[in-house]
Amino acid sequence: MASVMNSSHIRIRLQKNLKFFFFFSALPPPSLFPSKLLSIPTTKPSNLAHFVAQNDIVTPVQTPHTNSSAKHNESPFQGLECVMAGYMFGKKKATQVAQAVWKNVVRKGDTVIDATCGNGYDTLAMLRLIADDTRRGRVYAMDLQKDAIESTSSLLERSVSADERELVELYSMCHTKMEELIPHGDVVRLVAFNLGYLPGGDKKIQTESETTLLALQAAERIVGRGGLISIVAYVGHSGGREEFEIVQSFAAGLAVDSWVCCKLQMLNRPFAPVLVLLYKK
Amino acid sequence: MASVMNSSHIRIRLQKNLKFFFFFSALPPPSLFPSKLLSIPTTKPSNLAHFVAQNDIVTPVQTPHTNSSAKHNESPFQGLECVMAGYMFGKKKATQVAQAVWKNVVRKGDTVIDATCGNGYDTLAMLRLIADDTRRGRVYAMDLQKDAIESTSSLLERSVSADERELVELYSMCHTKMEELIPHGDVVRLVAFNLGYLPGGDKKIQTESETTLLALQAAERIVGRGGLISIVAYVGHSGGREEFEIVQSFAAGLAVDSWVCCKLQMLNRPFAPVLVLLYKK
Repeated sequence: MASVMNSSHIRIRLQKNLKFFFFFSALPPPSLFPSKLLSIPTTKPSNLAHFVAQNDIVTPVQTPHTNSSAKHNESPFQGLECVMAGYMFGKKKATQVAQAVWKNVVRKGDTVIDATCGNGYDTLAMLRLIADDTRRGRVYAMDLQKDAIESTSSLLERSVSADERELVELYSMCHTKMEELIPHGDVVRLVAFNLGYLPGGDKKIQTESETTLLALQAAERIVGRGGLISIVAYVGHSGGREEFEIVQSFAAGLAVDSWVCCKLQMLNRPFAPVLVLLYKK
Repeated sequence: MASVMNSSHIRIRLQKNLKFFFFFSALPPPSLFPSKLLSIPTTKPSNLAHFVAQNDIVTPVQTPHTNSSAKHNESPFQGLECVMAGYMFGKKKATQVAQAVWKNVVRKGDTVIDATCGNGYDTLAMLRLIADDTRRGRVYAMDLQKDAIESTSSLLERSVSADERELVELYSMCHTKMEELIPHGDVVRLVAFNLGYLPGGDKKIQTESETTLLALQAAERIVGRGGLISIVAYVGHSGGREEFEIVQSFAAGLAVDSWVCCKLQMLNRPFAPVLVLLYKK
């Protein structure tokens, strides 16, 4: 299969008139930064990510429950039980718990942001939560690394239908500028961060505390009531602990009357990732 | 209703030949420390706590699921979804999450320990998890405070049948000595701690770091594989933060290959209680 990056069906959008806050130390190849930058869409484009439909083979979260967002009012907390207990009992990862929590927040037709799309598993999970026949939902997924955009594109191509992929917008950009992607008036239900480096990629390229904080502040501004900022922080690599402390400090500073901020953390595995959930009441 | 402490049906057991590690600064009244100490039972007594059956009116954990322990193998993680999400979304307390976790660990007929019975809500929750027609299960509940024993007795009397209450043993003793209550060969499935002071009681009387650590070490020795040590730590009162740090250090020191240790903690409410779960694999 040809790389989706070479397909005319994929448009990698870069932002005009933006000062990029690069969140990794090694820049991606120049091919990702064309001299003529594309403008930012002000309405939801309908055809940003076309792929060839293949089997739906990737299911990063294994839960016995189906997505409950379609019947949110009937049973608002579906899907958490197995994953949450699995984490406590050492069987599930923080990323899986995060995705299970999203199911209790995100509804069909929502606008959501994957601030660090990486290999695309979170983007795919979000897409499944927002996609329905109304086609109102949208996943804005971004990453500065070419490999991440390629991986996400490829994963979507393999996993969901062309119709569903149209609901995803992929951006090669810094997540500090996420606000500029969202059409005026749209309420963002979820902003998800999976910090650190790209799994399987160059470990020297990783998110950094300064831009993470700016991105969190952006997320705080655009998440609506009943929405969530979800962060999986990795503390085992250089700079990871400092970045986690930045996340914690940011969370600690959010107003108690507007935000519920909690973390789920291993105690006898000091390098295990930490899940931080910031829920806007 | 006469105080259950004055009823001949209630036996408050004190331990012989034990050096008590008092875990509060003000001692209970001398009436709780008779000169002739009772011996420790070496088999499960059948009739330790008789009460008049009344309505089952206390349900501290409100979940849409019934206790799943009877069908543990079919659906091992029932009951967590609503409570866990409720905590993340600011609707449920740490104690409620703890009880929801217990439902995924404790089975009918198990031996469990409430190391700090307080007002008895945890004891009652445990009783409901272990009680069945086989009458094999047992809840060993302890507290040094007279008021706590009275409250727990009263709660049980109001809440469950006489048959069920027979499965509870109430001890006015220090939790550091919990091991000596357990009949030889019995495997303990759950040891629960609700640290701090007695709600509604004298706030000067509270658990202390030194005895908490000793009790945790005792719990570590007697909990079997597939069992849980559950701790709700309060950090808002004098000494509470230090005690929590002791709990964290203890958890951090447990072997990764045998224990899964995690915590659930609020980030923008520094005085909110912290849930610590230590699961023995």
